[in-house]
Amino acid sequence: MSGPQEAHAVILAGGRGTRFWPLSRQAHPKQLLDLTGHGSLLALTLDRLEALIPPQRQWILTSAALADTVAEQAPRIPREQIIGEPMGRNTAPAVGLAAQLILARAGDVPFAVLPSDHLIAPARDFQKTMSQALELAYGHDLLLTFGVEPTRPDTGYGYIETGEILEGASPACRVAKFTEKPDVQTARAYLKGGRHLWNSGIFAWRASVVAEGLRRHLPQTMEALGHCAKEDLGTDAFASALEKAYKASDSISVDYALMERAENVAVLPADFQWNDVGQWPAMRDLWARDAQGNSHLGEVLALQSENCIVYGPDRLTALLGVKDLIVVQTEDATLVCDFDRAQDVKMILDELHKMNRDEFL
Amino acid sequence: MSGPQEAHAVILAGGRGTRFWPLSRQAHPKQLLDLTGHGSLLALTLDRLEALIPPQRQWILTSAALADTVAEQAPRIPREQIIGEPMGRNTAPAVGLAAQLILARAGDVPFAVLPSDHLIAPARDFQKTMSQALELAYGHDLLLTFGVEPTRPDTGYGYIETGEILEGASPACRVAKFTEKPDVQTARAYLKGGRHLWNSGIFAWRASVVAEGLRRHLPQTMEALGHCAKEDLGTDAFASALEKAYKASDSISVDYALMERAENVAVLPADFQWNDVGQWPAMRDLWARDAQGNSHLGEVLALQSENCIVYGPDRLTALLGVKDLIVVQTEDATLVCDFDRAQDVKMILDELHKMNRDEFL
Repeated sequence: MSGPQEAHAVILAGGRGTRFWPLSRQAHPKQLLDLTGHGSLLALTLDRLEALIPPQRQWILTSAALADTVAEQAPRIPREQIIGEPMGRNTAPAVGLAAQLILARAGDVPFAVLPSDHLIAPARDFQKTMSQALELAYGHDLLLTFGVEPTRPDTGYGYIETGEILEGASPACRVAKFTEKPDVQTARAYLKGGRHLWNSGIFAWRASVVAEGLRRHLPQTMEALGHCAKEDLGTDAFASALEKAYKASDSISVDYALMERAENVAVLPADFQWNDVGQWPAMRDLWARDAQGNSHLGEVLALQSENCIVYGPDRLTALLGVKDLIVVQTEDATLVCDFDRAQDVKMILDELHKMNRDEFL
Repeated sequence: MSGPQEAHAVILAGGRGTRFWPLSRQAHPKQLLDLTGHGSLLALTLDRLEALIPPQRQWILTSAALADTVAEQAPRIPREQIIGEPMGRNTAPAVGLAAQLILARAGDVPFAVLPSDHLIAPARDFQKTMSQALELAYGHDLLLTFGVEPTRPDTGYGYIETGEILEGASPACRVAKFTEKPDVQTARAYLKGGRHLWNSGIFAWRASVVAEGLRRHLPQTMEALGHCAKEDLGTDAFASALEKAYKASDSISVDYALMERAENVAVLPADFQWNDVGQWPAMRDLWARDAQGNSHLGEVLALQSENCIVYGPDRLTALLGVKDLIVVQTEDATLVCDFDRAQDVKMILDELHKMNRDEFL
């Protein structure tokens, strides 16, 4: 068994991020967008990680269509470790594949799984928690998930109720319960109670531990994926085995398939700032904001207007007498959306799909 | 005295049309914009007129800064008959100058005065009324204004209360009273009463009649302008006399200076459709409109959105859960404005001026 200093990282970059339309498109999903002015969410994720786990031990799982674009944004990761999934199968098969690949190539090392499209700051706090997690994963047969201290009763997140601290593995705690997207009253109670953490989608475990867990709960998927792991990375044989394996795999998240079912689950409290950048309103916290609550990337002149979110880096946007609007302007398309309808942006994509206007998808 | 078939036309094209920002700019004011997809408002005005009064007898008064651009849009009007005013002085000096120029060059012919930035249809009905007006002006010493049958209680227009039909000059009527921008209750009463017409800003008179009227009510202005009329058009001497005369002129509209004061005023009922295209909401009647009342020039995908006005000819604009918005997108600027604040668009220009952002004015 290798030490935590031999840890790998698996970055999941297969999402679409359709709620960021019209900025996000099929060929430029959310993780590849520069929403902050400091680089794409993927690039920021890799930067944050690099001090801890070098690119030689990083893996990215993304869609086959995006693999080359992702590789351009991650030039220091060996190309064959950027794997294009032949179809979307949610996160469990991706994690199962990664576990078997890492086992076959590096042995039973700890590895972290990270979304590519979240924002985390400060990087140093993230690195401290991650370092701790890899240590714990090295020494214990645990499935560790990172729990973020909630700062508001957000109803869009999953919550983890913490149990007692695990003896010998402090500060990791047992998980009493997972709750996905509670109503606002419940979320408020969670916030007040102080025992709940946000489920960040960041995990750490040893390769053998997660592989065993998935083999128990998704045996067929893991068997199918096992065939790929025997092929040489980057070869046609690998691609062909991968396609076969994904066709045979369940489409399920690692949370549902494993974390909510396994016994050896633990949560590691994290005290970094975490933003899953789920939809346009998340930009409130990321962009310049005026005294009337208008957040913007691009120049805005707001007269008697409040609580708007405006993206238009190449132009002046003047607001007059409006409030609670999201205005997003790209080269060929504009979105004007009520603030409370941000989660329904996907409706526009459905409509465009029906209209065969694929150039806008 | 020449007959009505010798009539001239004077087109007033000096306005800014600031309420159409960001489409209207200093160098491209409203009258030069193609708001309908069928040519600029000025070009449409000239087209409408040409069957009745040929370009050789058309004059345009505009600002000095715009004269060359206007000349490009009116290539068939002799260049020296496109006069650039050295400063804005409202409409009375422009009309006074035109009257004296026409008197000096063509004698006491009838002439029409027309705004360059209104929409009128059908052209044939306009031509019929104009023809009638020029006949009446030829035969009578009347200051004729065109009154348009109101179709709604618009509070942005001037209203003319009609008196009795003028004997021998039917269907022209005496004017009982001018009322500028009534409140909505008054406007409703006018509409119901049936005796009020909208003041269209279109006039017809003989050159001597309007010159005499203005000499009585604006003697100093008319004397100053008289010096220009003696100079050769298009010469430096003319330009220099014009500058001197405008400096000495009152800044006042022909309505206030003359029509509301003179005795020989008459209104000619007009039954064409007339739209002064005063601000963005006027586009409701000009652009394609969907079942939810969204009017647009450019492609719009409106989901659960109503009563919006969208300009964006080079892009797709998606609306989601919004209503009563004006969204105007040009190459370098966007306006998002509450429908009821359309008349306040000038506030944005004031602000940009304060910020020294002249590139957007």
